[in-house]
Amino acid sequence: MDRAKALALVKEQLTDKRYEHTVGVMETAVQLAEKYGVDSRKAELAAIFHDYAKFRSKEEMRKIIIDENMPKQLLEYHSELWHAPVGAYLVRTEAGILDEDILQAIRFHTTGNKDMNMLDKIVFLADYIEPGRKFPGVDDVRKVAFENLNEAVVMALRNTIKFLLDKKQPIYPDTLETYNTLIRCQ
Amino acid sequence: MDRAKALALVKEQLTDKRYEHTVGVMETAVQLAEKYGVDSRKAELAAIFHDYAKFRSKEEMRKIIIDENMPKQLLEYHSELWHAPVGAYLVRTEAGILDEDILQAIRFHTTGNKDMNMLDKIVFLADYIEPGRKFPGVDDVRKVAFENLNEAVVMALRNTIKFLLDKKQPIYPDTLETYNTLIRCQ
Repeated sequence: MDRAKALALVKEQLTDKRYEHTVGVMETAVQLAEKYGVDSRKAELAAIFHDYAKFRSKEEMRKIIIDENMPKQLLEYHSELWHAPVGAYLVRTEAGILDEDILQAIRFHTTGNKDMNMLDKIVFLADYIEPGRKFPGVDDVRKVAFENLNEAVVMALRNTIKFLLDKKQPIYPDTLETYNTLIRCQ
Repeated sequence: MDRAKALALVKEQLTDKRYEHTVGVMETAVQLAEKYGVDSRKAELAAIFHDYAKFRSKEEMRKIIIDENMPKQLLEYHSELWHAPVGAYLVRTEAGILDEDILQAIRFHTTGNKDMNMLDKIVFLADYIEPGRKFPGVDDVRKVAFENLNEAVVMALRNTIKFLLDKKQPIYPDTLETYNTLIRCQ
């Protein structure tokens, strides 16, 4: 699928603000892919579609998680996490993207996963550092993202876990597992 | 077993500094038990014995973890965590303490556990806030410990997880699971 077609498909699914974010993620993901020698076409498509399910209702997402045998544990955590695996499913069934690399990057983009590959890390980070993101610490991650991919993912995970701790929000076990795995990779 | 006998047994196992810490944990655990209506004799004995295995060699602890079918996952994490489950085992086999409540409080005192009961929480917290402990945030936890036991455990877990994140150290999954469980209890 070419970029224009993909962008047109997601535009229908998103608010203007979220679409703008998506374009930022796309541009950042392509830059990171070029920097690290990862397939930039896959990075571009995964980034374009990463938030495809963002505005689906909780009811629809819950049904898909159950019907498609996704980890039941998701339902015990914040629904903000659901759009990633549900997105991977809908991007396949509605948008017809069958490339498993792209679908996995979409699936892992919010919680992370201990088995993340470079493409997954690129989409995860691009979502975190795209130019529209403004929160404490993002500039540090932005800089490190182009120097050491793993290190940047660890920084993003650390910031996210601390943010959730401060808000007394639960932390999805996969996110901790990703952190525990990646600090050992350095 | 009476207090004097228990203290004499652990004194042999510990450095002077760690013995002094143990006495602090004992006094704090008894105060918390009285505050919350928990068996203060059990709290006292669990506190006295909580660090019983602290100075055993890694080799001995590793062997006990394997031979006694403790969670193998422990071996992938910092050996600092091992003395708690190994301690519960040695307190039973060497010191002859058979009370499962006391042994469980010893077992859970470092990592926490999603199924911690009040006695477990008291020993966990007493270890964290005893008067000899001096680190950022401990005074806040000390105060809350006598107002809201769960809240104080959550604060201690949050501080510990942040500390480990800042040091790029792994976080044992049970610790996160304890946090995720207890924030939902409040």
